[in-house]
Amino acid sequence: MAATKAMVTTDLWRMRDGHLQPRQGSVVVEEPLEIIVDGAPYSVLMRTPGDDIGLAAGFCLAEGLIDSAADIGSIQSCEAEDPNQVAVIRAGARASEGPPPRSVPNTITSSCGLCGRELIEDIARRLPEIPAGFQISARELLALAHRLEEAQQYFRPTGGTHAAGLFDASGKLLSFAEDVGRHNALDKTIGRLLLQDRLGAARVALLSGRCSLEMVQKAARAAIPVLAGVSAPTSLAISLAESAGLALIGFLRHKTLTIYHHAGHIRDLD
Amino acid sequence: MAATKAMVTTDLWRMRDGHLQPRQGSVVVEEPLEIIVDGAPYSVLMRTPGDDIGLAAGFCLAEGLIDSAADIGSIQSCEAEDPNQVAVIRAGARASEGPPPRSVPNTITSSCGLCGRELIEDIARRLPEIPAGFQISARELLALAHRLEEAQQYFRPTGGTHAAGLFDASGKLLSFAEDVGRHNALDKTIGRLLLQDRLGAARVALLSGRCSLEMVQKAARAAIPVLAGVSAPTSLAISLAESAGLALIGFLRHKTLTIYHHAGHIRDLD
Repeated sequence: MAATKAMVTTDLWRMRDGHLQPRQGSVVVEEPLEIIVDGAPYSVLMRTPGDDIGLAAGFCLAEGLIDSAADIGSIQSCEAEDPNQVAVIRAGARASEGPPPRSVPNTITSSCGLCGRELIEDIARRLPEIPAGFQISARELLALAHRLEEAQQYFRPTGGTHAAGLFDASGKLLSFAEDVGRHNALDKTIGRLLLQDRLGAARVALLSGRCSLEMVQKAARAAIPVLAGVSAPTSLAISLAESAGLALIGFLRHKTLTIYHHAGHIRDLD
Repeated sequence: MAATKAMVTTDLWRMRDGHLQPRQGSVVVEEPLEIIVDGAPYSVLMRTPGDDIGLAAGFCLAEGLIDSAADIGSIQSCEAEDPNQVAVIRAGARASEGPPPRSVPNTITSSCGLCGRELIEDIARRLPEIPAGFQISARELLALAHRLEEAQQYFRPTGGTHAAGLFDASGKLLSFAEDVGRHNALDKTIGRLLLQDRLGAARVALLSGRCSLEMVQKAARAAIPVLAGVSAPTSLAISLAESAGLALIGFLRHKTLTIYHHAGHIRDLD
């Protein structure tokens, strides 16, 4: 396989008209990235290389390891020693906490009990305030979905990427990412704006895939009032959207969408 | 929301012909499940309730915590105290190891270095032997894909589930699962057969979604020679398939498929 940054070319056989034919095709790159926080290994993400710093920043915000850019003392890729490692040193009030424990898959909390409701309550306690007063119409959301589709460059050749985009109140695309993981794609868009001190302008997060609990958690930790996905949400995603005051939209496609919770952010439902 | 086991009904607004209309719709249930191994918390999975025991068994096999059903001393859901908890006690040679350390997201190994190649080598060292001599034709794979689609009951109403199915050499569907997570769906199908001592008969694993590294790892740990998905594979998925001697097929749809690695298991390519 010949490597580029986000895609590789590989030999394969494709079935066409009932016959297998040798061809070449593109495949999305998946590589591990280790996140080191305050000197200690915290987590390993399977990601598509590119904007690893943004990914690490967004991931730390979502995990509650930092609350703002001011909590980051330094963040750097260990390019020379290990290109698959990003080291984050926390500053300010968070610096005194010492290294966080290694994270456990798919649970962001350690203090909560083990049911969805308690998980939601625990996550909700650590959310920032969602900006009030922002509203968008269903028609405007459909237009943004079109923009997200246009911005994707790796999905058509590989079929293996997820996309995420953050938009401001005027519908301007502030940040965009494609990645083998939908969690990573959203973390990259959020982390990049956080490091540029522009995250406060983000009002709508759009995803090419499904909205699970963790996707709503990432949007809510970034104080983004509207989250919409091309595919379905889950039961806990809706519960957290309700608890966090975030609008949650699914099945956002060419002419259709489904609103699962509006939280006052959808103009047509006033 | 009114709960059933795998789906809930929720109020929503659906856009049709440019207008938002209040409706009711189905959403897939997502709930945390904690896996306790040898008395210590190991991992938390976000899953759709149902066959939690199978999920835990399949997950432990994939993680390398057990190598066969003989390594399981007991496995039980803690229904009375916490319905979102399964406790696994290891037996035999594995019983003496003591509780494994809590797992870290998306990495199954802790000894490997942090590049894809080393990750693959580390995983490959701990794989069982893949049964030799099994072959299937592209046409037969297309027929199995049709069977997987027919078996799905939650995707149509919710749009939020992944499906996995295991087939034997004659094309019989041995095990099937739908879950909010594609990892869980595959773990459930594998774990169920493991506990019934029938996993040795599985020859083909089919997935409704993408094949990432972890999906190939799960199939390879279960010694299943052919893994096929409706969507794309990743670069590391192909690398592990090559290393493990597993056939990897993507874009398995009505009349098309793409073979990324055949490992001698695809009859048409002999």
